[in-house]
Amino acid sequence: MRVAELSRTTGVPVPTIKYYLREGLLPPGVRTSPNQASYSGEHVKRIKLIRALVDIGGLSINGARDVLAAVDHPDEAVFDVLSTVSAGLGISTVDGSGEAWSPARDRVEQLIESLGWQAKLDEPAVEVLIAAATALHDLGRDDLIDLFEPYAEWCLQLAKIEVAVVNRRDDIGDLVEGMVIGTVLGDVVLSVLRRMAHQDLAAQLFAGRCEAADRRTG
Amino acid sequence: MRVAELSRTTGVPVPTIKYYLREGLLPPGVRTSPNQASYSGEHVKRIKLIRALVDIGGLSINGARDVLAAVDHPDEAVFDVLSTVSAGLGISTVDGSGEAWSPARDRVEQLIESLGWQAKLDEPAVEVLIAAATALHDLGRDDLIDLFEPYAEWCLQLAKIEVAVVNRRDDIGDLVEGMVIGTVLGDVVLSVLRRMAHQDLAAQLFAGRCEAADRRTG
Repeated sequence: MRVAELSRTTGVPVPTIKYYLREGLLPPGVRTSPNQASYSGEHVKRIKLIRALVDIGGLSINGARDVLAAVDHPDEAVFDVLSTVSAGLGISTVDGSGEAWSPARDRVEQLIESLGWQAKLDEPAVEVLIAAATALHDLGRDDLIDLFEPYAEWCLQLAKIEVAVVNRRDDIGDLVEGMVIGTVLGDVVLSVLRRMAHQDLAAQLFAGRCEAADRRTG
Repeated sequence: MRVAELSRTTGVPVPTIKYYLREGLLPPGVRTSPNQASYSGEHVKRIKLIRALVDIGGLSINGARDVLAAVDHPDEAVFDVLSTVSAGLGISTVDGSGEAWSPARDRVEQLIESLGWQAKLDEPAVEVLIAAATALHDLGRDDLIDLFEPYAEWCLQLAKIEVAVVNRRDDIGDLVEGMVIGTVLGDVVLSVLRRMAHQDLAAQLFAGRCEAADRRTG
């Protein structure tokens, strides 16, 4: 099909498709004349994947490019890509100089040891954890650092279900694509469901406390 | 203290502090002369909170402003703010016209009913869920939609622990601040721990499958 039909089929405007081509997110079509190329069902599939990662997963174009490269050349490096590429993980410079950093690092080290994980303290993912623990301590919210343990336990239990689902696919490309989609869109789905669970649990409780506060101050 | 000392204390450059003042994230200091203002410990605390939300939580400046307004004027609207403000939830236009939308909506409606939640189908958070289910179906990954149920159960169980921790604070401002910090930074911490759990569980399994694939193709 030509680019106009690719646009109609996917609902994505032609200039956006050309942008994906220029940025290397979408492989070029087969050139049929100096000004025309022909696209296939694989291009339709890839555009849907790009839109899911960018529009719903919240990835940047650079993030999506990295992730798609991992899908196209599946190997163990996919974990490195996924551990750094995420809507929420845009921490570019981690400042390990504050005085709260060292106890936070010890705390995260203990957590990783107690879980029996192999992660190293200088991995980007682990540095994000340490940065989060440092910030929480600085904000006087050590009580929220205590949640890291139950969070980790729950992630492990959930990961068993997730890996089982993704691992049902025989094809290694399908498996990696499933990991990428499941990780990126899963973040968003979990984040939304987490807020809905909070709202359902806390709304009544919270409304009661606001009324009490109003009575005191009003 | 003057702005220079506020900068030294927080480690945040003066132009950045002035930017926060202009954007309304930081309340103005007490004016001591036409060109000078005096800042307090509350300003130090607020700057730490802004940095945590933006640098670690990945919020935009607009997102941080909305969240801080909820902290300053705590009421039930904090849930609405938190349900839409998040690094991953930048879905601006949800397109409910595709043919996969309607079954995805039915699926999400069933999920909400089975959980006994009060959420309405036209809430932004629920629309994100429907959009994610639609995208997963379009990508041929209905198996990943099946994970929504365990995700929701898991979020509910975790929410009980989270709400208990945050609710320990007597002051309503502290409670809302804890909700905001816990929600925004919790997203990031969970996202990192989830990837670490995947990596730990799947790396060996995955390495084995890559080797098998190499033997077949090599």
